[in-house]
Amino acid sequence: MTDYRRLRVALLGAGAVGSQVASLLLRHGDELADRAGARLELAGIAVRDVDAPRDVDLPRDLFTTDAETLITGADIVIELMGGIEPARSHILLGLGSGSDVVTANKALLATHGPEVFEAADRVGASVYYEAAAAGAIPIIRPLRDSLAGDRVVRIMGIVNGTTNYILDRMDIEGADFAEVLADAQALGYAESDPTADVEGHDAAQKAAILASLAFHTAVPLDAVHCEGISAITSSMIEEARAAGFVIKLLAVCERLTGGDTEKISVRVYPALVPRSHPLASVHGANNAVFVEAEAAGSLMFYGAGAGGVQTASAVLGDVVSAARRHIAGGVGVGESTRGNLPVARIGDVVTRYQITLEVADEAGVLAAIAGLLSEGGVSVATLVQTAVPSEEGEEETARLIIGTHRATESALSAAVERLAASDVVERVVSVLRVEGE
Amino acid sequence: MTDYRRLRVALLGAGAVGSQVASLLLRHGDELADRAGARLELAGIAVRDVDAPRDVDLPRDLFTTDAETLITGADIVIELMGGIEPARSHILLGLGSGSDVVTANKALLATHGPEVFEAADRVGASVYYEAAAAGAIPIIRPLRDSLAGDRVVRIMGIVNGTTNYILDRMDIEGADFAEVLADAQALGYAESDPTADVEGHDAAQKAAILASLAFHTAVPLDAVHCEGISAITSSMIEEARAAGFVIKLLAVCERLTGGDTEKISVRVYPALVPRSHPLASVHGANNAVFVEAEAAGSLMFYGAGAGGVQTASAVLGDVVSAARRHIAGGVGVGESTRGNLPVARIGDVVTRYQITLEVADEAGVLAAIAGLLSEGGVSVATLVQTAVPSEEGEEETARLIIGTHRATESALSAAVERLAASDVVERVVSVLRVEGE
Repeated sequence: MTDYRRLRVALLGAGAVGSQVASLLLRHGDELADRAGARLELAGIAVRDVDAPRDVDLPRDLFTTDAETLITGADIVIELMGGIEPARSHILLGLGSGSDVVTANKALLATHGPEVFEAADRVGASVYYEAAAAGAIPIIRPLRDSLAGDRVVRIMGIVNGTTNYILDRMDIEGADFAEVLADAQALGYAESDPTADVEGHDAAQKAAILASLAFHTAVPLDAVHCEGISAITSSMIEEARAAGFVIKLLAVCERLTGGDTEKISVRVYPALVPRSHPLASVHGANNAVFVEAEAAGSLMFYGAGAGGVQTASAVLGDVVSAARRHIAGGVGVGESTRGNLPVARIGDVVTRYQITLEVADEAGVLAAIAGLLSEGGVSVATLVQTAVPSEEGEEETARLIIGTHRATESALSAAVERLAASDVVERVVSVLRVEGE
Repeated sequence: MTDYRRLRVALLGAGAVGSQVASLLLRHGDELADRAGARLELAGIAVRDVDAPRDVDLPRDLFTTDAETLITGADIVIELMGGIEPARSHILLGLGSGSDVVTANKALLATHGPEVFEAADRVGASVYYEAAAAGAIPIIRPLRDSLAGDRVVRIMGIVNGTTNYILDRMDIEGADFAEVLADAQALGYAESDPTADVEGHDAAQKAAILASLAFHTAVPLDAVHCEGISAITSSMIEEARAAGFVIKLLAVCERLTGGDTEKISVRVYPALVPRSHPLASVHGANNAVFVEAEAAGSLMFYGAGAGGVQTASAVLGDVVSAARRHIAGGVGVGESTRGNLPVARIGDVVTRYQITLEVADEAGVLAAIAGLLSEGGVSVATLVQTAVPSEEGEEETARLIIGTHRATESALSAAVERLAASDVVERVVSVLRVEGE
C-alpha cells in the first residue's frame, strides 16, 4: 500500500445521502486513495443530534455537534445538510479556512450561488456540486467542462423524480393525480408535504443551476418561471396521448436569438413532448437531461435523479476531484459567468401550444374562435373536434383541441383570455406548451 | 474586453475535425477567452501540404509544414493528425517542452497510452482526450472524474457510428449487409476501405480507452477481444426481432467478480440486445454508452459519435480545460491506473447465447442436441422449432433457435463444436451472445 498524504474530510449531515457517503468513504478507503492520490480520512460527521437513528451503521465516535471545530480542521468539507442556514455559514467558514467544498445543496446554490463562488475565488478554492442537479447523473462536468468550447442552445431536463414518477403512472394507468400522489407518498416516492416537488420548486432550483452553467450567466432563482403539475388531469394525459404526446414536467433553459439582444429563458412547466422524443422514454423516478449545442448537436444524459446511495456516488466523485486538486496544487478554477445574458420574461418565450376548449356545438363557432386567436397573432396549425355527450335537456357542446403555430406566451395568454370571455366558449379546459418537436 | 493572458495553441492536422476546431477558435475567440480565463491564440496549423484543399476557409498564413517549431513554441498542442507516427513523437515533443496536450487519437492512446501519460506525469502536464471515444459525447470526464468515487461494474457502448448505421438500416429495411454497406459508402457513412469500422477495430480502440478509465487499469489494445459485423445476415436480424432482440455492435467492459481474483473483460462483438433496453433505441450513426456502477446505478450517455464539427466541440472543451489549468497553476493530474486488474481471456466470459441450427426433422433430435449441450455444462433456457420448406426430393429439415442459460465462452464453443460435428445437425447457422438483459 502506498504511503499517501492524508486529507481530512469533514462531513456535515448524516441523512440519506450523508450516511451513504460516510459508509462508502470508510469501506472503499484504499481504492479511493489510489484514485485520489491521497488518503481521505473521515475526520468527523457534524449532526444536530448525535444519538438520532441513522440509515447506516457508522462508528459512534465520528459524530459531533461541533460543526465549526470540525470544519476549521478540514481539507475538504462535504455539506449535505440542505437548506440555507447553517449550510451557507458552514460553507463560507470552510472556504475561509482553506478547504475545498463539496455540496449537493441546490436550494443554497440557486439562491446564494454567486456569494459562495466569490468566496471560493477569493481564496483560490473550488466548490464542487455534481450532486446538486439530477442526482447521480454526471451533468455538471459535461456542461462546465466538456461543452465549454461550444454554445449550448437549449436544455430540456426531467430533473425531478417524484413528478416524473407521478406523470408516468398517470400515463400508464390512466389514474388521477391525487390517487397516484397518495400512492407515491405511501411508497416513499413523494414527501408527506409534496409541494416542493409537485409545484416545480425543486426543478426550478436545478434549472437555475443548469442555466447558469450552460449560459455562463448567474441565473437567480426568482428569474425562473415555475409551474407545477397539480392541475394535470387524467383526461389531459389521455388527450395528449391521442395527439402523439406525453406530458412531462420539463426544466427548459433556452437561448433566445430572435430579438435585438441575445437573452435566455429559464422555465419549469408541464409540457407536451412527442412520444418519439428520447425524453418521452424516461420512466419512473428517473431523470434525463437533453442538451442541444451548436457544434455537438443533441446529447442526452440519463440515470437516477435521486436516492441516497446514487447521489453519494456523485458526491464522492467530487471529493476525489477536490483531493486531486489539493495534491496537484494551483488555485481552483472559478465559475464562468461572463456570458452575463439577461433572462427574458416568460411573456417573450415562443413555443407551440395545445388549447382544449368546450364550445357550443353550432354553426360559426369555429370561425369565431379562429378569429379570436388570429386577432392576437396566434394561428391554428391543427384542429380536432369531438362531440361531448350531452344529458337530456342540456345544450349540445363539442370539444375542440387546437394546436397552434409558434407564438409568444403573451400573445397566447391574451388570446386565451379573449376565448374565455367569448360567448361561444363554454370552458377553457387546458392550455399546454409543446416542447421538443 | 478583459485583457487576458495569451496562450499559444498549436494545431496539428486540418482534416474534418481540425479545420472545424481552427474555425471555431477563430470565430468564438472572445467567448472562449471569457470561459478559459485566457486568450487562445491559434499560433499555427501544421499540415503535410499547405496547399491541399480544406473543408473550411482558413487564413493561408496559419499553415506550416514545420510542426516541430510550432509545437515547441506552444502552450497547448492539439493533435488531430491520427495514426501513430508522427503523432506520437509530436505529442511527446509537446509534453517535453511544457505544453498540455489535447488529442482525439484513439489508435495512439489504445496502443501507446501508458507512454504518453507517463511523459505527461514526468513534467506535470495533462493529456485531454474527450474526443477519442464516442465523439461529441462527454464520456471521458464522467468516467475519469464523476464516477471516481464509485465502482463501475459494466459498460456497454455503441461506439462506432458506421456499424450502428448499417445494423440499424438492416433492421429497419430488412436489407442485406453488403447492400447497406455499399449504400453507406456512397453516402459517406462508411469509408471506401471499411475494415476498421466493420471488423470492430475502431470500437476495440475505444473499448480499451473506456475500460482503462472505468477500471483504473491500463488495458492494452491486444487484450481486447474483437469481432465485427460482416457475418451478420438479414435472416439473423429477422430471427433476433422475432425473439424480441435487436443486433448491435457492442463494446463491453465488465468487472468479473466470480473467480478467486477480480478480473475485467473487454470485448467487442455483435450481440443481441433486448428491444426494451435503452441501447436498442440508438438509431442511425449515433453513439451511446450505458454504464452500470455499484452506487450510481444505471447511467446512459447519448449523442453524435463522429462528425467534424461535433468532434470539434469535444476538442475545444478540452482546450478550455487545458487553458484553465495553465492559468490555475499546479501540476496535471495523471491517469489513475492503480486498479491494475488482470484482463480475462474471452473463454472465461459468461453470457447467455442464442444458437440457431438446421437439423434433421426426425424423432430424437431434440434430445440428442440437449444432450450435446449439457455434456459441457450448457443448458437450454428457451427453444423454438420451425419447419424449413424442403425442395422435392430433399430431406425434411427443421430450424432450431436455442436460447441458453449463462455459460462460459469456452464451454459454449466446445458445445458448438460438438453440435457441428454431430450427425443430427445439418448446419450451425449462427451463434450470438445476449447482452443487457
